[in-house]
Amino acid sequence: MKTIPSLQTAALLAASIYSGTANAQDRLAPARPLPTPADISRPLQALVEKEPPAGYNQWPNTPQGWAERQRASETSGTKTAIAMAERLHVTVTPAVMGGVKVFDVMPSNLAPANRDRLLLQVHAGCYALGGGEAAAVEAILMAGFANYHVIAIDYRMPPAAYFPAALDDVVAVWKEAIKTHKPSQMAMFGTSAGAALTLATMLRARDEGIPLPGAIGLGAPMADLTGVGDSFNTNAMIDNVLVSREGFCEPAARFYANGHDLADPLLSPIYGKLGKLPPAILTSGTRDLLLSSTVRVHRKLRQSGVDAQLQVFEAMSHAQYLRDDSMPETREVFDEIASFFDAHLSK
Amino acid sequence: MKTIPSLQTAALLAASIYSGTANAQDRLAPARPLPTPADISRPLQALVEKEPPAGYNQWPNTPQGWAERQRASETSGTKTAIAMAERLHVTVTPAVMGGVKVFDVMPSNLAPANRDRLLLQVHAGCYALGGGEAAAVEAILMAGFANYHVIAIDYRMPPAAYFPAALDDVVAVWKEAIKTHKPSQMAMFGTSAGAALTLATMLRARDEGIPLPGAIGLGAPMADLTGVGDSFNTNAMIDNVLVSREGFCEPAARFYANGHDLADPLLSPIYGKLGKLPPAILTSGTRDLLLSSTVRVHRKLRQSGVDAQLQVFEAMSHAQYLRDDSMPETREVFDEIASFFDAHLSK
Repeated sequence: MKTIPSLQTAALLAASIYSGTANAQDRLAPARPLPTPADISRPLQALVEKEPPAGYNQWPNTPQGWAERQRASETSGTKTAIAMAERLHVTVTPAVMGGVKVFDVMPSNLAPANRDRLLLQVHAGCYALGGGEAAAVEAILMAGFANYHVIAIDYRMPPAAYFPAALDDVVAVWKEAIKTHKPSQMAMFGTSAGAALTLATMLRARDEGIPLPGAIGLGAPMADLTGVGDSFNTNAMIDNVLVSREGFCEPAARFYANGHDLADPLLSPIYGKLGKLPPAILTSGTRDLLLSSTVRVHRKLRQSGVDAQLQVFEAMSHAQYLRDDSMPETREVFDEIASFFDAHLSK
Repeated sequence: MKTIPSLQTAALLAASIYSGTANAQDRLAPARPLPTPADISRPLQALVEKEPPAGYNQWPNTPQGWAERQRASETSGTKTAIAMAERLHVTVTPAVMGGVKVFDVMPSNLAPANRDRLLLQVHAGCYALGGGEAAAVEAILMAGFANYHVIAIDYRMPPAAYFPAALDDVVAVWKEAIKTHKPSQMAMFGTSAGAALTLATMLRARDEGIPLPGAIGLGAPMADLTGVGDSFNTNAMIDNVLVSREGFCEPAARFYANGHDLADPLLSPIYGKLGKLPPAILTSGTRDLLLSSTVRVHRKLRQSGVDAQLQVFEAMSHAQYLRDDSMPETREVFDEIASFFDAHLSK
């Protein structure tokens, strides 16, 4: 153990000050060391100890560049998904629902209570990444840990299709699902952009008079693209996944938005009316760049009379529970969401 | 708006680097500006904009010095309590229960559903401050906003009495309360050290076979005095109430502990067995130095099979909801706790 800083260290840190914009009278928080948190699992400690990725604040500046990033993400994410599915004894079958590409994700032992239930999962990836079989990672974790039948939606992304294509696809799958299942037997869930799309789907379905599912799960919802949210500052450079608002994710979302008003509730659902939505469980971590987005959605749901529960995991950065299926915290996240669904879905 | 930093600003920040202890390989988070959060009320913005108090990391080094700080805190806190009670139309009457000084706090309109219910409130103040009528602030807010009858416990503090005197006092009041009320008609709640004392009281009562209340409320529980908790680092110098672990509160708690093992579950209840406790609602803020303590207790309660709900408020520092009764967030905190109690207490 040593006491920080030496002046040399301080100078180094000063050079790396987080370059957010600010008013002259703003409070300033000094640099700080981030010792490995003691009260988390070893696998999560290993994730937490990682430096933010080099080039976190670089992104393509052409549609072709985005398409290349998308293919690379699909290739590596597909490998992850296939390995997870094998470890968790889950079968992943490509299919089409409502004209949209999906993956049908089935556990080896469907729980008797879940025979007639169906979950729909909307993938993460900033509206621009995580397609192909990578779209099924969260479905695989849920199917594997909690023995649910899950449909993962491989919605269209730019440059192939811009806003509201992804939302249209999720809504189309939902309309198809209610032809074969009671809405009360179904839940929809997702993380980050997937949670925002889940919320936006609820807003559109409610406003169009389409029945809503029995519950929803919102993991670290990317619910505000307008820059509002205190953890964009407090957790900047502490979250080692999204890293900062200057990171990859917001430019990707703007690429999807394609010039559309970012405050539109179908892009930033925090600005929608959230009344009469299904019971919701929200998940975040204390280091999550979207911690504020998550707790703001939770508060607004509660203010709107929605039964909404919040879980926040110690020292976890954005959506880190999707990274390692061997991590006890990953199982805990999905056990909680599954038991919330179990309490709210009809059989 | 300007972009930070100039090199001059950076040098200034470097000089003020948070001086936590760390290992050489620890990640380092750079300094950052803290713009005023947009999505909170004006009164909370005013609290959030305050610089940490000068001398936040200074504390008395003699029992006489502590006693003087205690008297000063009692004097100023009593003024606050009296003014709040007037604004909220609440009557505060000194009394004695089980040999312990308490304040009987009665709203002007006791809700019909609450006629036979009673809440017990355990005050904040790092085990060393906040006595006298200041002990009743949280009771006054609860009585005023939610029309409950509340007993505020003015437990003994050092240098008059050391660990476990405060805990003994809370347990004594609880034993007295169950003589006149059904345990299922009562809840116990408190903030910071008061939340830790509430939890420790539950552990002791459960282990001694004393009936437990129908629910508990834990505001930013000071549940771990051993230094574990990631937000001690991530929120250091961002929380403008406790400011850092080098601040006033932990030395005050150690003064109360008086050399006793800080990992004793009666001082750090996170290390206790938390099974078979009453339903609990936990409250914190994204800037709270004890955010990690709060979410760790929430997780551990859930892992122990306890019905536990979490609420986290945007940009709020430690226990800031006790500061301003005109703040919408203050009312929201107490409305949520009150409705949780209403759902879990018998009539």
